[in-house]
Amino acid sequence: MPSLPGTGNKIIRIAERMKRLGTETAFSVSEEARELASRGKKIYPFHLGDMNIRTPSRIIEATKKAMDNGKTGYCPPAGIPELREAIAKEVGETRGLKLTKENVSVQPGGKPVISKFILAFMNPGDEVLYPNPGYPIYESQIKFHGGIPKPYRFKHGEEGFVLDFDFLEKSVSSKTRIFIFNNHHNPVGAELDERKMEMLAKFCLKHNLLVLSDEAYFDISFSGRQKSIASYPGMFERTVILYTFSKKFAMTGWRLGAAVGPKWMIEQITRLNVNEESCSNHFIQWGALEGLRACREETKRIISILRERRDAACEILKTIRGVEVAKPNSTFYLFPDVTEAMKNLGFTDVEEFRKYILETTGVSFCTRKHFGTPMDGEEREYIRLALSGIEKDEIREGLLKFKEAVENPDMIRKWREQRSARF
Amino acid sequence: MPSLPGTGNKIIRIAERMKRLGTETAFSVSEEARELASRGKKIYPFHLGDMNIRTPSRIIEATKKAMDNGKTGYCPPAGIPELREAIAKEVGETRGLKLTKENVSVQPGGKPVISKFILAFMNPGDEVLYPNPGYPIYESQIKFHGGIPKPYRFKHGEEGFVLDFDFLEKSVSSKTRIFIFNNHHNPVGAELDERKMEMLAKFCLKHNLLVLSDEAYFDISFSGRQKSIASYPGMFERTVILYTFSKKFAMTGWRLGAAVGPKWMIEQITRLNVNEESCSNHFIQWGALEGLRACREETKRIISILRERRDAACEILKTIRGVEVAKPNSTFYLFPDVTEAMKNLGFTDVEEFRKYILETTGVSFCTRKHFGTPMDGEEREYIRLALSGIEKDEIREGLLKFKEAVENPDMIRKWREQRSARF
Repeated sequence: MPSLPGTGNKIIRIAERMKRLGTETAFSVSEEARELASRGKKIYPFHLGDMNIRTPSRIIEATKKAMDNGKTGYCPPAGIPELREAIAKEVGETRGLKLTKENVSVQPGGKPVISKFILAFMNPGDEVLYPNPGYPIYESQIKFHGGIPKPYRFKHGEEGFVLDFDFLEKSVSSKTRIFIFNNHHNPVGAELDERKMEMLAKFCLKHNLLVLSDEAYFDISFSGRQKSIASYPGMFERTVILYTFSKKFAMTGWRLGAAVGPKWMIEQITRLNVNEESCSNHFIQWGALEGLRACREETKRIISILRERRDAACEILKTIRGVEVAKPNSTFYLFPDVTEAMKNLGFTDVEEFRKYILETTGVSFCTRKHFGTPMDGEEREYIRLALSGIEKDEIREGLLKFKEAVENPDMIRKWREQRSARF
Repeated sequence: MPSLPGTGNKIIRIAERMKRLGTETAFSVSEEARELASRGKKIYPFHLGDMNIRTPSRIIEATKKAMDNGKTGYCPPAGIPELREAIAKEVGETRGLKLTKENVSVQPGGKPVISKFILAFMNPGDEVLYPNPGYPIYESQIKFHGGIPKPYRFKHGEEGFVLDFDFLEKSVSSKTRIFIFNNHHNPVGAELDERKMEMLAKFCLKHNLLVLSDEAYFDISFSGRQKSIASYPGMFERTVILYTFSKKFAMTGWRLGAAVGPKWMIEQITRLNVNEESCSNHFIQWGALEGLRACREETKRIISILRERRDAACEILKTIRGVEVAKPNSTFYLFPDVTEAMKNLGFTDVEEFRKYILETTGVSFCTRKHFGTPMDGEEREYIRLALSGIEKDEIREGLLKFKEAVENPDMIRKWREQRSARF
């Protein structure tokens, strides 16, 4: 803490809980990339989950119309009834559930569902199971509000990443109350098959867990039928689905999502909206409604762009010496194992490896360390590539440079020399 | 709690803190009014703080342009630099402070500043001074996050409502950490003079309090120079200003505001944005920026509409037998004392009085009970009229009906007869 001129430290008084608050360190990678770009370096932005795809124009036009029609005053805290009904229909049809607007609370983004869920259903001292590596805000919010984070993990096998059930069984205790799940999972892209989903549902029932099902990437799936944990017997009444418009309609900066679940849980979430926001922006809800009514094709177009990017990236990555990559069926992330590549180049710290690649090639990405506190016994090193904000041609160009930096011993030697000269 | 079919009460498990969460009960008055309207009753909406004034078209056009320009992706968690700079300039000039964008964190509304301030600076067990009657979310958030609410009050004298300093001095203790202040105050419309502001600043310094200065109504002032507690010596470094676009530009449903304060406090607020929202809606920030650049005249127009409404309402209210009203210099609320009127009509409960007026005349308003837990020793009864959502002519028509209902013994007799027939 800095001391204040003339006042000493006396008034710097931050609540204790703020020491437990985490962050998305991905933002600091952005800063580094921006800094490098400002010095003229070409950057290949694989680091952030933002999208460089335009929001469908029908959604923009409907939003403009709502503004013109005076939808600029407050709306109900849980959202306009029309949008709540449309989300209920959409989520109901895709998850095989019978829903009404009472099951939906509109939110200013998908992310607010995480903090609201934790506030509404977790007591201090409760243990919460969450994926690690995983979206770092889970761990942050659990700790922030006094819960005990219990990470579960994934095994990296032939078919990509799979949930480690044995580890999960060992992590649960009589104090475990909540299970946070993300079946289309950032960063690893793991996806459970039918049998595993059933096992997981039974696990939640057996241990009487409430569930936050983060389904931000549910609609970004390249083949097969998407599954929600809420669809399994006995699960709906204990599960809140995190729903968002950000990915399916390229609306990241609009900040619009929803909590979807049983009435008893949704009512609690909406009580928090009354306290924290009054409501979400009124007129953009009319835009999102148009999206649900008329933009199915647009989502298909977005998925096809993302599939092409995934294929282009995997094609090059799998040729790189010491790099292994699983091709995920959903999300717009890749999570390559770079253990051997690092070993070949003499790196022991994945952050060092990241900086080497960034500084020599302009290829900017996050690492495993940006997705939760690494666990004991982790032996492999991973990086995370986001494909949402970079065109296919740039992906190819960037990853070919990445390949050169990994495979060409001259480059690493030169970088090390420059480095020691700098310090 | 309802029991769930087939599951018993087993899974209904709401966090303890939710029992301490309050609400804006004004919403339930809205429901009552809506219900009555649906049965054909004409409603005079004096109950909610929403505005029936259009957002300036320049702001709407700038927002549309931003959407067309692709401002639909994420922006930085603290907001776009351009808007942060413009808010710093505006708040700096009007409060006599030297500010930069580092002093500003854009928020999805003014309200989120309350919960974020409490989370960032209040520990469980800390005592927090807050105005009562006052905006009910203060009390709710203090209790929700484990603080001890210490209400302070106002004296109703010749010149309207004034802060009761003696009571304030008695309420502070060595455990008091935070002072919540609202100098343009909903519902009472109290405003401190220069000397009282100085006294208050000294009080905060003496007791080493951090301050949340809710300045939602700072720009809705009818005469004189507005004052901020942050402007007084030693205060800025300990004060977060709640700033909002809702009132000055009639943007209630847009949900856009900001926290403004010293860097050390703003940094903590923004950490919460990273966790809770990522950022506020991107493109509406460009609209608000246009508002700050070019809509000074529009704010004047809004204020002049609200002044006319205030004057029209006060003119009739002061003629009503048993009703006393102070004419506030800011906000768009009136807080008439109806103690004698209630006595004349035989009411002992202000909520009963409210229902009588609503059912007989369609005049819908909140009461003192909607603005914090009534305190021991309160002897007067108050109602709150909001003038933001009702035209001048309707104000006159409604309040003349209100006058009749208060002064005509036949009306109350008839209502009581109908009532006993109903039950």
